[in-house]
Amino acid sequence: MNITQISKTKAFGGYHYQYSHQASTTNCAMRFAIYLPPQANENNKVPVLYWLSGLTCTDENFMQKAGALKMAAELGMAIVAPDTSPRGKNIPEDLDGRYDFGLGAGFYVNATQTPWSEHYQMYDYVLNELPALIEQHFPVTDKRAISGHSMGGHGALVLALRNPDKFVSVSAFSPICNPVNAPWGKKAFLNYLGEDENSWQQYDASILMSKAEQRIPALVHQGSDDNFLAEQLMPASLVNAAESSAYPLHYEQVDGYDHSYYFIASFIEQHLSFHKQHLN
Amino acid sequence: MNITQISKTKAFGGYHYQYSHQASTTNCAMRFAIYLPPQANENNKVPVLYWLSGLTCTDENFMQKAGALKMAAELGMAIVAPDTSPRGKNIPEDLDGRYDFGLGAGFYVNATQTPWSEHYQMYDYVLNELPALIEQHFPVTDKRAISGHSMGGHGALVLALRNPDKFVSVSAFSPICNPVNAPWGKKAFLNYLGEDENSWQQYDASILMSKAEQRIPALVHQGSDDNFLAEQLMPASLVNAAESSAYPLHYEQVDGYDHSYYFIASFIEQHLSFHKQHLN
Repeated sequence: MNITQISKTKAFGGYHYQYSHQASTTNCAMRFAIYLPPQANENNKVPVLYWLSGLTCTDENFMQKAGALKMAAELGMAIVAPDTSPRGKNIPEDLDGRYDFGLGAGFYVNATQTPWSEHYQMYDYVLNELPALIEQHFPVTDKRAISGHSMGGHGALVLALRNPDKFVSVSAFSPICNPVNAPWGKKAFLNYLGEDENSWQQYDASILMSKAEQRIPALVHQGSDDNFLAEQLMPASLVNAAESSAYPLHYEQVDGYDHSYYFIASFIEQHLSFHKQHLN
Repeated sequence: MNITQISKTKAFGGYHYQYSHQASTTNCAMRFAIYLPPQANENNKVPVLYWLSGLTCTDENFMQKAGALKMAAELGMAIVAPDTSPRGKNIPEDLDGRYDFGLGAGFYVNATQTPWSEHYQMYDYVLNELPALIEQHFPVTDKRAISGHSMGGHGALVLALRNPDKFVSVSAFSPICNPVNAPWGKKAFLNYLGEDENSWQQYDASILMSKAEQRIPALVHQGSDDNFLAEQLMPASLVNAAESSAYPLHYEQVDGYDHSYYFIASFIEQHLSFHKQHLN
């Protein structure tokens, strides 16, 4: 598995890189960003936090806007940010020119429906192909945590709840908690997965959490002034699921914050500290 | 002087706002951003750091990418980020479709040449009109510090060196230190100020620093891997000027950093602490 360096930039004593590579899961070139803290070298491998971004984002948004690198450098934690969908001129783009499906909106599922199934395999990409690549090419351990925002918060929760052996902890900012009941989720799942709604359930964090057996710690922050809170995000479903299954979820609704990266930046250090605790 | 709110977003317990207003200096609508830390209210006014951005930037880049708001909230410091030029459909845009002149490239001068002189009056805007507006509308004191990046570092140094009574301290990241001898500066000054190079000198930080009498403390960081270092930025001119006039400049070249916001983010907290010391 070869990777091609696109950029290398010093930050907080470590380095931020962007790479591209030909992915077998998504059957196209993929781009990702990785931050390696100053402590990372072949004699001192560091654990990795995977960050999944939201609708319309690329590998860049989190690295540029979240203000996470300072503490990652202090804690000795790598951060990997994949893209949010396959991209390229041969990739089917969307249904109707909107932002919430297709490019930038892979929803971290394995699509089963044409024309999406050929490339939109973001679940397998993030779960298997990307970590294998990262652990092959960079001085990191196989200790992994996962986090994300909005669509990426949904992705992080789903990946962690279904694969508690692969991640030590999970967190999310304003995740889409119950996509089978939300307009964004219904549109994506109908088109990526088809009409059989049973197939949607494996990608719904609230349903998965209500039945979770092996459990890794979860932390969720949600702003009370988030425009998408009631219609799209539905955190009450996740909180109810956690209560019904006694899941170790720490859910915090914070007053006055919205859906933006200013919200993420305000609480990202709490999330990094939370993950560091479990990565050690 | 009326202002119109464009956005309001909670961040680190305080609020980030964007406003527009009709400016008399630039004779058009201007946009700016302000971060008010949680401590700021009518009974507890806070000092202000003015941040001047570089070529192609708007009021948004610093606020989104510098990672400055956390410490501004801790220190109880407001930050104001103006745009980098006048903008609008009636504003002359550039000479040849390039990024380094016209829109996004006001160079913080008062243009004297047509067609630029009608709107490109960024020196007066940042020095007088904007602070008056800020101090009228927000719970801030008249204690001001100033900082900036690249073209904005040039602007910050020039404004502070010419107006040491208006600012308590100045800092810059990778400033254009000697624009009368740099391609970016020569192009801008020739077109904004005309062929008389004597008129350019009032906007050259190295020339101003070599003759400075009243002096406020200055801090400059420069990355050693900055692509623009030798041709455009010329920090040696500033360091020499400081030596010749015994100016209190602390200049630090840091190994391996480039011209990006990752560099700024890596050292912004040092700059905020420096300014806070003098704002108190």
